[in-house]
Amino acid sequence: MMEKKITVLPGDGIGPEVVASAVRVLQVIGKRFNHTFHLGYGTIGGAAIDQHNNPLPDETIEMCENSDAVLLGAVGGPKWDQNPPELRPEKGLLRIRKHFDLFANLRPVKAFPSLLDASPLKREVAENVDLMIVRELTGGVYFGEPRMRTENGAIDTTVYSKAEVERIVENAFELARLRGGKLCSVDKANVLETSRLWREVVEAKKKEYPDVLVEHNLVDSVAMKLITNPGHYDVVVTENMFGDILSDEASVITGSLGVLPSASIRGDNFGLYEPVHGSAPEIAGQGVANPAATILSVAMMLQYSFGLKEEAAEIERAVSAVFDDGYFTADLARDGSRVLSTNEWTDKVINEI
Amino acid sequence: MMEKKITVLPGDGIGPEVVASAVRVLQVIGKRFNHTFHLGYGTIGGAAIDQHNNPLPDETIEMCENSDAVLLGAVGGPKWDQNPPELRPEKGLLRIRKHFDLFANLRPVKAFPSLLDASPLKREVAENVDLMIVRELTGGVYFGEPRMRTENGAIDTTVYSKAEVERIVENAFELARLRGGKLCSVDKANVLETSRLWREVVEAKKKEYPDVLVEHNLVDSVAMKLITNPGHYDVVVTENMFGDILSDEASVITGSLGVLPSASIRGDNFGLYEPVHGSAPEIAGQGVANPAATILSVAMMLQYSFGLKEEAAEIERAVSAVFDDGYFTADLARDGSRVLSTNEWTDKVINEI
Ligand SMILES: CC(C)[C@H](C(=O)O)[C@@H](O)C(=O)O
Ligand SMILES: CC(C)[C@H](C(=O)O)[C@@H](O)C(=O)O
Repeated sequence: MMEKKITVLPGDGIGPEVVASAVRVLQVIGKRFNHTFHLGYGTIGGAAIDQHNNPLPDETIEMCENSDAVLLGAVGGPKWDQNPPELRPEKGLLRIRKHFDLFANLRPVKAFPSLLDASPLKREVAENVDLMIVRELTGGVYFGEPRMRTENGAIDTTVYSKAEVERIVENAFELARLRGGKLCSVDKANVLETSRLWREVVEAKKKEYPDVLVEHNLVDSVAMKLITNPGHYDVVVTENMFGDILSDEASVITGSLGVLPSASIRGDNFGLYEPVHGSAPEIAGQGVANPAATILSVAMMLQYSFGLKEEAAEIERAVSAVFDDGYFTADLARDGSRVLSTNEWTDKVINEI
Repeated sequence: MMEKKITVLPGDGIGPEVVASAVRVLQVIGKRFNHTFHLGYGTIGGAAIDQHNNPLPDETIEMCENSDAVLLGAVGGPKWDQNPPELRPEKGLLRIRKHFDLFANLRPVKAFPSLLDASPLKREVAENVDLMIVRELTGGVYFGEPRMRTENGAIDTTVYSKAEVERIVENAFELARLRGGKLCSVDKANVLETSRLWREVVEAKKKEYPDVLVEHNLVDSVAMKLITNPGHYDVVVTENMFGDILSDEASVITGSLGVLPSASIRGDNFGLYEPVHGSAPEIAGQGVANPAATILSVAMMLQYSFGLKEEAAEIERAVSAVFDDGYFTADLARDGSRVLSTNEWTDKVINEI
């Protein structure tokens, strides 16, 4: 019995297809649990460049400002690869994160037993993975100034204020408390000043969370351990650039890159939800892309923006069940799996709900 | 019939043990091929802090300046973990790299068939790995200024001059030409100015190497592909911080972290050679550490500093043969392997030569 406004930004490549599937699932959940979701569609990325010569048009920003949450497909494609930096699809992504101050990027990685065969890791290494990377998303070297060409080279600047570190670290502690009670903070404190600040903030904050087990790890060492012993991790918190690298690394360990969701949130309930996979232009428009990542992003929206835990769990259960029944789309198919189109696969999920 | 001076810096933890083994192998090679290696011993890291209150004493620098190459064990340990930054063992490492302008860090990763069982990756993913990460080692955020605390936070600065990028990129092209003819340049050109400079330099330089196949890849995407398809890579070149993360990530994919060597070189023949593994204080002094990484570092010294290709190949062959015969040290042992002490294992290698 909730009423929510959601801005939908399908984006480029397979974005529109997988978003269409996720929206169908969202509406079914709405009916089943008696909620009303009002959807408005906007443009972002390459589609927005084509229509408005701007990867994040003002209309889109305004729509999002008047919404409770945003569902995004994916952006990018070869068509815009040669554009100048300001007219690149990903600029739309960077700007929407910054504009809405979406400082916490949550990237859960969980093994689906039925997808483990596709993992590059040995089954026994990958099967117990259930971790969440919490990446700071609006600070660090992504936005620090000065960033420019100099007479004989170039510079970038990593900047963090104590307050920026505090809010993301707090966020991670809260998540650790709700999950397995373990937090790994990642930095390069043996080299970077911003990392020493980061470590101090974590040390100070941990006094408020005596129930959370905290460890500090260097980014190079985590890059190894995510492969050798990913089951070790529960919540992993880190700054923007390290988070970019580690969350992508983590995304392939369970063989389920194609099905991973993400949330980009801030202090209140507003958030942006999107699949981890890219726009995959090479398979766009063929109805072969698996929509699970976007459907699970809707589940994250229900949980983190609307507090609808039961509804979120229902979606997760349905998606797992369809995989367990051996149904796949062509992009994830393997020997012996039953191959469905994007829409048929979505029907199966809906039937489960 | 060569005469060379080598400074040996055993360092901390298992450093002295594995270095002693590598020195034995070096001397045997000297005898066998009629070369004379003059060795002088110096201190670095924790050992140097204990003796001289300085992780890189002037005496050590002077010794290295009067040598043709340096062999290093490993530095660090819990004893010095609480020291202020200037009195940390790793500061010795950072300073020696910078002082001698060792701008190119070469990190080969090659699958040993007999160690693949220890890999977290499936055999078919890891077995064809034979790559070399070329990491810029004296620039970027490791040394850029300003790096400091500010009133309400902290900053670090990534700085690259065009000349710094050119020399490392050139180095990588040369290596690619000698190896498989493929070069992957890694950057984050969709976000960083220094990365756009990097990419431009690679694009310009590739005209001089029409025989090398070049690709540009984003760091987050390489972090994934190093796990899903490591066999794809030949030479990978990147800046200091990305190189730190990716080379450690790469080091675990073949299950042979304990046996990987490294070289840190500059334009001329001088270089610093060290195992990739750390000082492993928990097993120090027990004669259980495998010396292969340090022995193979000696092989890299022979090849890159002294141009002794045949001698280097002989060491590599001998090390492989001992593993293939099923001999391991306790740190690498598995079911059914024959376990030798550090010294006994070294004897086997020497017998092979
Ligand atoms: C497209 C790019 C700028 C972006 C990032 O680095 O943040 C992407 O890699 C991501 O992780 O969402
Ligand atoms: C000890 C540390 C400063 C060093 C680095 O980051 O360069 C180490 O991780 C390495 O890769 O040699």
